[in-house]
Amino acid sequence: MTVISIPAGSLFGVDNLPYGVFSTADTGRRVGVRVGGSVVDLSKALSDPAAALFAHPTLNAFMAQGRDRWVEVRAQVTELVSGEIADEAVFAIDDVTMHMPIAVADYVDFYASENHATNLGKLFRPDSAALFPNWKHLPVGYHGRSSTVVVSGTDIVRPCGQRKAPTDGAPTFGPSVRLDIEAEIGFIVGVGSPMGSSITPDQFAEHCFGAVVLNDWSARDIQAWEYVPLGPNLGKSFATSISPWVVPLQALEAARIDTPVQDPTPLPYLRGEEKWGLEIDLAVEWNGDYVSRPPYRQMYWSPAQMLAHITVNGAAASTGDLIGSGTVSGPEKDQRGAFIELTWNGTEPVTVAGEQRTFLEDGDEISISATAPGPSGGRIGFGEVRARVLPAAGETRQAKSNRPGVQRRRHGRA
Amino acid sequence: MTVISIPAGSLFGVDNLPYGVFSTADTGRRVGVRVGGSVVDLSKALSDPAAALFAHPTLNAFMAQGRDRWVEVRAQVTELVSGEIADEAVFAIDDVTMHMPIAVADYVDFYASENHATNLGKLFRPDSAALFPNWKHLPVGYHGRSSTVVVSGTDIVRPCGQRKAPTDGAPTFGPSVRLDIEAEIGFIVGVGSPMGSSITPDQFAEHCFGAVVLNDWSARDIQAWEYVPLGPNLGKSFATSISPWVVPLQALEAARIDTPVQDPTPLPYLRGEEKWGLEIDLAVEWNGDYVSRPPYRQMYWSPAQMLAHITVNGAAASTGDLIGSGTVSGPEKDQRGAFIELTWNGTEPVTVAGEQRTFLEDGDEISISATAPGPSGGRIGFGEVRARVLPAAGETRQAKSNRPGVQRRRHGRA
Repeated sequence: MTVISIPAGSLFGVDNLPYGVFSTADTGRRVGVRVGGSVVDLSKALSDPAAALFAHPTLNAFMAQGRDRWVEVRAQVTELVSGEIADEAVFAIDDVTMHMPIAVADYVDFYASENHATNLGKLFRPDSAALFPNWKHLPVGYHGRSSTVVVSGTDIVRPCGQRKAPTDGAPTFGPSVRLDIEAEIGFIVGVGSPMGSSITPDQFAEHCFGAVVLNDWSARDIQAWEYVPLGPNLGKSFATSISPWVVPLQALEAARIDTPVQDPTPLPYLRGEEKWGLEIDLAVEWNGDYVSRPPYRQMYWSPAQMLAHITVNGAAASTGDLIGSGTVSGPEKDQRGAFIELTWNGTEPVTVAGEQRTFLEDGDEISISATAPGPSGGRIGFGEVRARVLPAAGETRQAKSNRPGVQRRRHGRA
Repeated sequence: MTVISIPAGSLFGVDNLPYGVFSTADTGRRVGVRVGGSVVDLSKALSDPAAALFAHPTLNAFMAQGRDRWVEVRAQVTELVSGEIADEAVFAIDDVTMHMPIAVADYVDFYASENHATNLGKLFRPDSAALFPNWKHLPVGYHGRSSTVVVSGTDIVRPCGQRKAPTDGAPTFGPSVRLDIEAEIGFIVGVGSPMGSSITPDQFAEHCFGAVVLNDWSARDIQAWEYVPLGPNLGKSFATSISPWVVPLQALEAARIDTPVQDPTPLPYLRGEEKWGLEIDLAVEWNGDYVSRPPYRQMYWSPAQMLAHITVNGAAASTGDLIGSGTVSGPEKDQRGAFIELTWNGTEPVTVAGEQRTFLEDGDEISISATAPGPSGGRIGFGEVRARVLPAAGETRQAKSNRPGVQRRRHGRA
């Protein structure tokens, strides 16, 4: 039997207990919980019926059981990890492979940071008001591509597509030369709602299972050319990365705060008594340098309002729905969660590992992590979503060296 | 044993053989093929291994097997329906219930009719050029909500949401008062492509399994207020209806024609040798009156170009992906596939069952059907996508009579 020792100050103490899907050289995918530097195999460490629920390759079966069951199992797991666990159910984090924690149903990405929306408005539409008239009345969002949501550690191939600068006469095709990130939090629906019904903001905790860190990779050149009038498509659809550990909503109780003041007052269907602003601190690491620390607390719209909004028209919600918050950007420059903002469209390079940089280059590695106050005074962690950028498919060295607008790296970690 | 008799001129002769998912009072969901007025249960009428493939509640397992298998099974089914079939495998169409034929993976809706895009541009943005600069360079599309794709016969509840007319000071919440249809063809991906790869236009037949008629219900008031800058969301996400019978791509061989001339010449990744324009005629019935006959042949972008476009950035395609063509509208007024066009934003009512009508009222019933030339000289049918509009959830008679902009119906079929 094993007793798991949790280092002092661990972001994965008994106040956190995030769920993830892992495999080892000897086992297929199943659900585990992370404690300190260990992963506990819940399909082995618990007894049935809970154990059977975790012998699944995704969290969906467990999530679909609803909040009473989430609370009950969390209590069981809390007790479990405080005692002795069978050796064969405990693995070192470095000895396991993490996989997509959920089967994604619908994926809707929002745009809920006023700083981000204002910055992007200025950059994409310099001649118009930065915020559109609807922005403070409803959480603006769009559906993304579910099949390209991937887990941290998956390499991201630079996408190709059509780009056309305002000064170009016609669009050209090729690898994106303005590849960017968006640092977000993703919320996962555990229990959906049938078509024809809706979810109020105060019912959020009955439906939302937990949260992950999300990187909404964005090819700004492709996006700028394609997005009018039906919104982003290929500029985003090539990849969205999420962290492997789903932090239960229950673990975020101490992080709950009011959103910023919403003025004008939202329509009644977007109002609730419950606080669903969240005191989460993100950090963006670019080739090992921290370049931004976006504060989630400034997000204008709460995730409870987002879920209420997307179901108020009677659209069904499903187990496995993923809701992206939109880029988290604070008011300060070093709080911006996308490089197009951080470098002001490439005109104000940042220093990364000793180099002046704007957009992503091949070989770059991005890690976005997040922490929040834990229920007992310490902090809890989301872990990280990390990925490396690979050259575009089929791209030769010759073509790469001719690609316009790409600064060559002088050195780096990749 | 039964020999199926096919009436002369049937749209469901041996040249068509569409697949669908049905149940009866005694059986669960399984795959059948439609022949004349009969449905043949392929899980009983064929022998294994094909039979086992059809004892599924969706077509996905069969579709995933790939084109060689589709061709092989179609030959088997053609032979089957020409001979004697066991009585217990044959049902009258009126004795079965049809279900969703596929489990929808990602749903992307396009905007491929030049007439439709021009008309909508004039209506939504009267002060700008009707077509945006990107429209003739790429098939513009966006991701829709997969979980609200429903089969023909499913009632559509009028959606609620935020609406704001340009003259209103602030948005209001309530049932859409500008509920509309969009008559489209939906293309279903049988075999996907992994992330990082792409599908060329000439590989279309290797990946596309077949086609359905699609009604992309649209709440124009909700859409107009929300869609800038990230595209349609709640104005569309409440429901998308499809016909239950999937016409195999093989049955559309005789319908293949050139698209209209594409000028400027598209970029190379959108070019191919194969013709994937389609000679399909749609018909829109509103409370029993035919109000429009949209011609698919005028669609600017082919479905092969749409699939090539959405994968050219390396996005994965999956078995069950649904690609909507966008509204089919011809150059003539009575060829427009959406009521916002047909009635020119409600200013030019049409006569429906003796009444002057603009947008949809509660109790209205819409049926969209389609036919195409068959391989042996006759015509083949898609069947229809039919649905009735129900009042908004929780709406009282009082609230309804106060709803602005709704003309009361004097009589009707509902």
